Amino acid sequence: MDLHKLIAPLLQKNDTKIVLYVGDGLGGLPQEPGGKTELETANTPNLDKLAREGVLGSSIPVAPGISPGSGPGHLGLFGYDPVEYLIGRGALEATGIGFKLEEGDVAIRANFCTVDSDGNITDRRAGRIPSEESKPLVERLAKEVSIDGVEVIVKPVKEHRFVVVFRGPDLGGEVEDTDPQRTGVPPLKAEAREPGSEKTARVCDEFVKQVRQLLSHEEKANCCTLRGITGKPSIPSFEEVYGLHAAAIAVYPMYKGLASLVGMDIVGDAQSLDEQVALMKENWDKYDFFFIHFKYTDSTGEDGDFDAKVRRTEEYDAAVPAIMDMHPDVFIATGDHSTPSMLSSHSWHAVPTLLWAKNCRSDGAESFGERQCLTGGLGQFEAKHLMTLALANAGRLTKFGA
Amino acid sequence: MDLHKLIAPLLQKNDTKIVLYVGDGLGGLPQEPGGKTELETANTPNLDKLAREGVLGSSIPVAPGISPGSGPGHLGLFGYDPVEYLIGRGALEATGIGFKLEEGDVAIRANFCTVDSDGNITDRRAGRIPSEESKPLVERLAKEVSIDGVEVIVKPVKEHRFVVVFRGPDLGGEVEDTDPQRTGVPPLKAEAREPGSEKTARVCDEFVKQVRQLLSHEEKANCCTLRGITGKPSIPSFEEVYGLHAAAIAVYPMYKGLASLVGMDIVGDAQSLDEQVALMKENWDKYDFFFIHFKYTDSTGEDGDFDAKVRRTEEYDAAVPAIMDMHPDVFIATGDHSTPSMLSSHSWHAVPTLLWAKNCRSDGAESFGERQCLTGGLGQFEAKHLMTLALANAGRLTKFGA
Repeated sequence: MDLHKLIAPLLQKNDTKIVLYVGDGLGGLPQEPGGKTELETANTPNLDKLAREGVLGSSIPVAPGISPGSGPGHLGLFGYDPVEYLIGRGALEATGIGFKLEEGDVAIRANFCTVDSDGNITDRRAGRIPSEESKPLVERLAKEVSIDGVEVIVKPVKEHRFVVVFRGPDLGGEVEDTDPQRTGVPPLKAEAREPGSEKTARVCDEFVKQVRQLLSHEEKANCCTLRGITGKPSIPSFEEVYGLHAAAIAVYPMYKGLASLVGMDIVGDAQSLDEQVALMKENWDKYDFFFIHFKYTDSTGEDGDFDAKVRRTEEYDAAVPAIMDMHPDVFIATGDHSTPSMLSSHSWHAVPTLLWAKNCRSDGAESFGERQCLTGGLGQFEAKHLMTLALANAGRLTKFGA
Repeated sequence: MDLHKLIAPLLQKNDTKIVLYVGDGLGGLPQEPGGKTELETANTPNLDKLAREGVLGSSIPVAPGISPGSGPGHLGLFGYDPVEYLIGRGALEATGIGFKLEEGDVAIRANFCTVDSDGNITDRRAGRIPSEESKPLVERLAKEVSIDGVEVIVKPVKEHRFVVVFRGPDLGGEVEDTDPQRTGVPPLKAEAREPGSEKTARVCDEFVKQVRQLLSHEEKANCCTLRGITGKPSIPSFEEVYGLHAAAIAVYPMYKGLASLVGMDIVGDAQSLDEQVALMKENWDKYDFFFIHFKYTDSTGEDGDFDAKVRRTEEYDAAVPAIMDMHPDVFIATGDHSTPSMLSSHSWHAVPTLLWAKNCRSDGAESFGERQCLTGGLGQFEAKHLMTLALANAGRLTKFGA
């Protein structure tokens, strides 16, 4: 079912405000069977109050058993089928450093490597060269690589990793990696998977040739491989599919990047949740939809620190009154996936979800937690349906059929 | 969503063991509204303990309201979309008697019938000729029918029913039934539905012609009709789609056959659950995945015998400790469909499902039963997702997207 096609003729405008408040990796696991999860352990009086007035459910980001990365996790929350709308690795890497891809760009994850005098790779990651040493090399490439008819943008990431973007006409995004995945052989020649990407493949080869020349006297990194060579994903905007003028207020570049891929405005440069909420207040009249991203419920989960995740969850809860003071019509608290501190990684477990709105049908939940969500009124649902529920609760969807 | 395509790039190998313990037709109905089902009535201390530590849910074999046969029921449990992967009736009949179809085979359900001197059918089922009388006829056909360039395999089933398999080059599986579904007319000529099955149609006609000649002096059965003429279904194997080396330990030929269609090894020739568990133990180191099939929860349901189904459910429970003693990483107890003894048949009701693994998110269930499953952490889910959940819980799937 194409949800966007289904709702397109039903959309109607009004002056409601929708807030999507994402606690990254919000779902968790208890420390022992039968125990409480991080969210259940945390003292979250504000979310608990909204749980009593609102409706709960368990969101499945992609499909049962699938642990999503941040890309598919957020696309699902934004109402885009995460299996249909794939973001290539290169595009995600560029997005992750906050680079704004344009239509027709080709983005690439590049790795510095070392090659011997015969051109055979001796270290695929250039000894994980420290960022402070790789950055000047990237800057040199940015200045000195020059390819006819193509703008070449090179940006540092971390250690041996950097991003390359080619901008120009007729650049397809279907080219195989040039990393041979082993040492003792030269980097592969770039191979187009379809005729429209032949030019990109030749540009890739020319780029690597120039990198080798420019870095020929470097000891730590004298060549590079290109991976995840992909075009800008073609994703219709929030305005197009929902008629929503949307703002993203995030601290980390990755989430600003993901929001910009669906056409949200990136608002301000907040460094903390307080600053995010303040920015939201400043911009309250300018937007219909606010995506607020809180990172630390995920990072503490990734660190395997149960207690820290509990504290960060309490911090996530503490900002709720200031948000509710702005009187959103629809308020949603959820995560893009679970990150149980017991696993120190993203997981496949369903994500606790709270939707609060005047006309939601409350379900008798007493508090916000994984177990309460199991009997919540939204049931278990695929994340991609959440935006339709938000629009409906905001009175922004008319009847389907007469 | 093509689940197999989704998980293919995510698969990773490890040395975990997954056990799929199927109580055929496990789900049931109470004897009066508000009463307990067979599973809820049964004393199942071992499954109840796992329910407290694990996670429950209700599995929908095909779609809400659809009562599946054994074929689609098991294909769903094995993670194959039962609507996409259809097993033709001929192939299922051959599979059901334990016959191992090869690629390119055409399998047929044949019925003995009687025809008069004009060749018109007088009894479509040859008076349901007893098996002991039809078997020698089948043996004669097996010996004496001979068709150029085609190997003809004929196997008895029961009463008037037998299986015919044609093996040879260029035999398509798209041929209409030759049973006219009424008496007083001759069997139909075989009609190919597509040009690639013309040869099969001619072989069918030649087969029926020879049967009629060979049995011309038989009184009880002197001809046959051919039905469900189908090729071997093309189903990718467990090894291909999950990277799992899988063993099937079943008593009944049908379930061995279904497992062999998805490429499981058929292990041993157990005649009881004890023997199945012993075989499992003997083969524990050789496989990643074990499918253990217990028939009697279904057959007692089919018999309409509530009390017998309760006793068989207790027998199903009693084998659990011996299985858990082998320390599987993921243990699943479920059914391929419900078989309520109140209905004496397969039904559409959701199937109680228990998944036990170290990192499943337990849901506060107290015991294993239909009602507890309603508030289970797996929610209601299509059976085809169960294998993805098993792989995730076994740590055999990496993250989808970055």
